[in-house]
Amino acid sequence: MAVGIDIGGTKTAGALVDLAALRAGAAGADGVRAAGAVLRQARTPTPVGEGPDALLDAAAELVARLLEGTPRDRVRGVGVGTGGVVDSTTGTVLSATSVLPGWAGTEVAAGLGARCGLPVRADGDGNTTLLGEHAAGAARGASSVLLAAVGTGIGGALMTGGTLVRGARHAAGHLGHVAAPDAAGVPCSCGARGHVEAVSCGPAIVRRYTEATGTAVPGGLRELAARTGTDPGAARAVADGGRSLGVALAGLVNTFDPELVVIGGGVADIGAPFTDPLEEGLRGGLLPAVRTVRLARAALGSDASVLGAATLAG
Amino acid sequence: MAVGIDIGGTKTAGALVDLAALRAGAAGADGVRAAGAVLRQARTPTPVGEGPDALLDAAAELVARLLEGTPRDRVRGVGVGTGGVVDSTTGTVLSATSVLPGWAGTEVAAGLGARCGLPVRADGDGNTTLLGEHAAGAARGASSVLLAAVGTGIGGALMTGGTLVRGARHAAGHLGHVAAPDAAGVPCSCGARGHVEAVSCGPAIVRRYTEATGTAVPGGLRELAARTGTDPGAARAVADGGRSLGVALAGLVNTFDPELVVIGGGVADIGAPFTDPLEEGLRGGLLPAVRTVRLARAALGSDASVLGAATLAG
Repeated sequence: MAVGIDIGGTKTAGALVDLAALRAGAAGADGVRAAGAVLRQARTPTPVGEGPDALLDAAAELVARLLEGTPRDRVRGVGVGTGGVVDSTTGTVLSATSVLPGWAGTEVAAGLGARCGLPVRADGDGNTTLLGEHAAGAARGASSVLLAAVGTGIGGALMTGGTLVRGARHAAGHLGHVAAPDAAGVPCSCGARGHVEAVSCGPAIVRRYTEATGTAVPGGLRELAARTGTDPGAARAVADGGRSLGVALAGLVNTFDPELVVIGGGVADIGAPFTDPLEEGLRGGLLPAVRTVRLARAALGSDASVLGAATLAG
Repeated sequence: MAVGIDIGGTKTAGALVDLAALRAGAAGADGVRAAGAVLRQARTPTPVGEGPDALLDAAAELVARLLEGTPRDRVRGVGVGTGGVVDSTTGTVLSATSVLPGWAGTEVAAGLGARCGLPVRADGDGNTTLLGEHAAGAARGASSVLLAAVGTGIGGALMTGGTLVRGARHAAGHLGHVAAPDAAGVPCSCGARGHVEAVSCGPAIVRRYTEATGTAVPGGLRELAARTGTDPGAARAVADGGRSLGVALAGLVNTFDPELVVIGGGVADIGAPFTDPLEEGLRGGLLPAVRTVRLARAALGSDASVLGAATLAG
């Protein structure tokens, strides 16, 4: 057994996981449930703005709640996935965005380990998400995988030979920050211009729609997604976002030659209106040598990071 | 000792290499020479158009010439780098371009092995070039590297943890086929549109110049390069090509987080007029987390593939 924790900008989620059951069950959320891999699940709001100690305290309380009644010697440890760039060898946050202010420099593994008396490992949430999808989701059995997680930003992770590519500075996987043709000149969240995140993440798709139609979308992406069946402008904005991302991902597939591309995150949940144009953009840019690459939707939703984090402790 | 062979579209080059000396000497072409790593060197025209057997015969003759007077039991084997997508586990060419017509399907390792009575391994020339630069050139000591080789096309290779990323279909490293902003709509050699090769390879730079100025360049890139000091249009075409490639490479660095980017190939030999704008484009697109990435010019020129191929046999 191991505990998986995901510390996000809104909530901190966790689960007590039977790792053997996780890997033995059928793939996908139903498979995970049917295998009895998740022994207990809980969540708590992330106390953003109260400083790193408050975040670690909240995570420690969540671990304690998940382990209530479970003998400590039956638990291998705790794995944590979190936003920002994380040194997975030390479990320290190297840098973070405004989603988790003050998080950079936090020794997550050491700080949470001291609080809960268990060995703790930590990694970036792109990596833990891919570990989860690889253990029990869309990437099960694949040895080389490119994950694109499309939400308020675009992140991801890479795996080759069944192992994460973490990069020389623990920063691999930032695939929202590759050039996209439609993005020329558009400012990106990172400060540069022309990156695919600037045209294909959720807020960018909403902005594209508003700019093209002059219509505000108070309900954001969820509202826009609901309109794609009836409002051609909404369908076009979502499709354009998907296509741009597909074109950008084609370049990564040509370069990295993964067996499988997994698309996850809230924007992917729109489904076909986003993923069909994405696939079209992707397939149109592939070299003949890599045309057999498979494309799959992520299968575990927001549970992927929690489950993948648990595998860090295994 | 091992033999390294590079089978290219014009010539087949080879060397008898002292692998220990190669790895022990100072990095760079002078270091390789000073260490006495290259015991013998030879080349022969590639008999393009005469079929794969003729190419293998020519390579076998080269091997025999290189090994004249050397006892076979002192030679570990032969490594081959060649154009096309090569299955490095079997040494078979999976696909090839018009540079080596009829090459696809050739069992290079088996065919050359039968001809010269030595164990033979084969890989794509992007990979052997990076192996060479890693053993004795610009990438020595680096564990994660992105190589961009810019010539009549743009190829490359990737390394992480000191090991090549070969990809699920042995096709990794085709980094000329990533989206570039300036390339929108421009047809690429691969049949797709919008790839960086279509604006940054040698012929593309010459075409950009001719389109912008209406002036033909009978001497091709070499002539254009010689003019950069005096002809602002030539300088601009070369700079634009470099900048576009830098912008594209920034996305790969953000995704893959290598320690080092190595730029090689004939276009890189232009030097600062190409590589300065390349670096500007690269640095302008990097995330803060990867800004310490190093950029270096390849150090071994066209010898890199031959030397790297020899390491395959080691």
